[in-house]
Amino acid sequence: MTGRFRELWDEIAPVGRDADSGGYLRYALTPAELRLREWFRAQAELRGMPVSEDGNGNLFAWWGDPAAGGAVLTGSHFDSVPHGGAYDGPLGIVSALLAVDELRAAGVTPLRPVVVAAFVEEEGARFGVPCLGSRLLTGEIDADRAAGLRDATGVSFAEALGHRPAGADPALLGRFATFVELHVEQGRALVDADAPVAVASAIWPHGRWRFELRGEGNHAGTTRMADRRDPMLTFAFTVLAANKEARLRDAHATVGRVAVEPNATNAVPSRVTGWLDARAAAPETLDGLVEAVRAKAAERARRDGTELAVTRESATPLVTFDGGLADRLAGLLAAPVLPTGAGHDAGVLAAHLPTAMLFVRNPTGVSHSPAESATDDDCAAGVVALARVLEELACH
Amino acid sequence: MTGRFRELWDEIAPVGRDADSGGYLRYALTPAELRLREWFRAQAELRGMPVSEDGNGNLFAWWGDPAAGGAVLTGSHFDSVPHGGAYDGPLGIVSALLAVDELRAAGVTPLRPVVVAAFVEEEGARFGVPCLGSRLLTGEIDADRAAGLRDATGVSFAEALGHRPAGADPALLGRFATFVELHVEQGRALVDADAPVAVASAIWPHGRWRFELRGEGNHAGTTRMADRRDPMLTFAFTVLAANKEARLRDAHATVGRVAVEPNATNAVPSRVTGWLDARAAAPETLDGLVEAVRAKAAERARRDGTELAVTRESATPLVTFDGGLADRLAGLLAAPVLPTGAGHDAGVLAAHLPTAMLFVRNPTGVSHSPAESATDDDCAAGVVALARVLEELACH
Repeated sequence: MTGRFRELWDEIAPVGRDADSGGYLRYALTPAELRLREWFRAQAELRGMPVSEDGNGNLFAWWGDPAAGGAVLTGSHFDSVPHGGAYDGPLGIVSALLAVDELRAAGVTPLRPVVVAAFVEEEGARFGVPCLGSRLLTGEIDADRAAGLRDATGVSFAEALGHRPAGADPALLGRFATFVELHVEQGRALVDADAPVAVASAIWPHGRWRFELRGEGNHAGTTRMADRRDPMLTFAFTVLAANKEARLRDAHATVGRVAVEPNATNAVPSRVTGWLDARAAAPETLDGLVEAVRAKAAERARRDGTELAVTRESATPLVTFDGGLADRLAGLLAAPVLPTGAGHDAGVLAAHLPTAMLFVRNPTGVSHSPAESATDDDCAAGVVALARVLEELACH
Repeated sequence: MTGRFRELWDEIAPVGRDADSGGYLRYALTPAELRLREWFRAQAELRGMPVSEDGNGNLFAWWGDPAAGGAVLTGSHFDSVPHGGAYDGPLGIVSALLAVDELRAAGVTPLRPVVVAAFVEEEGARFGVPCLGSRLLTGEIDADRAAGLRDATGVSFAEALGHRPAGADPALLGRFATFVELHVEQGRALVDADAPVAVASAIWPHGRWRFELRGEGNHAGTTRMADRRDPMLTFAFTVLAANKEARLRDAHATVGRVAVEPNATNAVPSRVTGWLDARAAAPETLDGLVEAVRAKAAERARRDGTELAVTRESATPLVTFDGGLADRLAGLLAAPVLPTGAGHDAGVLAAHLPTAMLFVRNPTGVSHSPAESATDDDCAAGVVALARVLEELACH
């Protein structure tokens, strides 16, 4: 399996790879991601699996009769964060295709359809809302709102898709009895556990908050320090406060994105906007973290003479995966059970059907970066584990 | 004069003005600035002043025979910082044209030529090097280096100019006996002094230092705080340290520009670059300030597990304007004498010929921002003062 994994993996490895950073620029519905979608259609055709696209940009390759019902859904997404790693998303799709091969080679005939999905815009890196495809399918985002989301160049999601997204599709969703998403681990827990594959227990509640700080643009050379209203100072203080408050709570807080106006070396900025990504094991911990950061930012804004506006851009509640299903799969695979701080399409679908996730060991623990990695042997172990899970769910 | 000032000022007020911010986007050799250059040529023609362009993109309108020598040079620049104010630069050119009108209306016939200049790329907002035109003319920047400077879209200065810049032009420079640049004040000193016009004594030594911080890009949701090497933390600490160290020294420090990679909400950045603009009354104060900020950044980088590289991008030594000339003009105008923290083409030319500056009161004290201002009456007083200075220098 290790050789077959490498062979298929090499087909997509160059697509959207930035030669400088070694990371991937595979934003949803841009040429790189569209090439991967075409590749997916071709791979499904090779396997005799008809592909349907729902009205929201998600692709589904069917092994078995779509009308049969009770289908087992697997798969993941192709799109990346800016200069992201190779595995986050594509590993789940490539592994699903190979798991189908594995089951067929073993002569398995599923009682229920097995369906491989490629969800659109999981990262939210292009249109700002993560898990956009699965949110549309499940009706967790309004189709009109999604249609109007725009990328950095002003192109709307509807324009990129070629049509207005259809939104909630309960008929399609009703055909799926279970969803299992395989994903590279985005931490070091499997390194510590010395295991190649784990089963997910839960996704931490998490969200994004925009901290917009307005001050007074001014000349860097001539404005006395005492006369300034510099939002960069308030921003800097907020970054350090978020770090401290997260550590105090065993939570995660990150300010990884910032926009400065006018962003000139010789000008005190008029506006600095920072985005806080915050996550914690429990909702009340998350609320307390964000409130503490907001309070510290507001206090510093008063000292700096700047104005603070905080907007919650997205919030995802605690997702607890189907406990019975997780236990069943963990038993089947003799695999550890782990929570994660990362959002996934599986987190969105978990509210609508029994859902599970498999994680594949990542030696660096690093993700959303070119340093993200997985050994071919561990990826092969992931395929074998996924094949056993699909057989368990589709044949019994 | 107030009415004539307003009339001429209104001709250029709409050019390059951003309707949203009310600020100006007049980057060197872009359509807005090119329109102002055309306007300058037309105004010179109306006044029978032949215009020559040197090989570096600087324009000169001559009242008098260029061959006569001993010319009195005045003028300033048209280009702006992003969303800059209306006055920084253009006020010096408009005032110079009106001062010529004023002298002619009074029947003054200069003994030596009076020349109005429009220097190119004074702000450095497009190609990154401030006072590029005057540095080229005086040979303070290598023509090849200037030719290869690129804007944010990859266009080089040579491409924007239409040819390789010629570099040092001692023959042209040798025709000028004096330079006087009129400029809006970029602080509140004239408000405090209750005077419309001042004469400059000196320009603080100043420079730009790039602080490049490298860490490890990672997933914001899944990476434990203890496992992170987050350069945003080091950046934030550096911003606050720069502010504190500047205040301790009565100096100026600003971090107004930042670049983040990958700049994604859900990724710990792999790299954050901040630009420090630092200025102080004395060179040793400036050196101490930058060294203190660097030391604090380095200490924090060790704690954050990030790597710090500091690069000096530009440094301008203390400029002391010709003391005899400043005293003579201050006496003539009964005007106060002030230092400034801002760089100007006059600061570059001061090393090559006797140079002076006049400042016009700015009620807000704000500059490099749409809030920059000057009353029409004060601008008119500036024109009258400049006319008296030009008469003093060209007729005696």
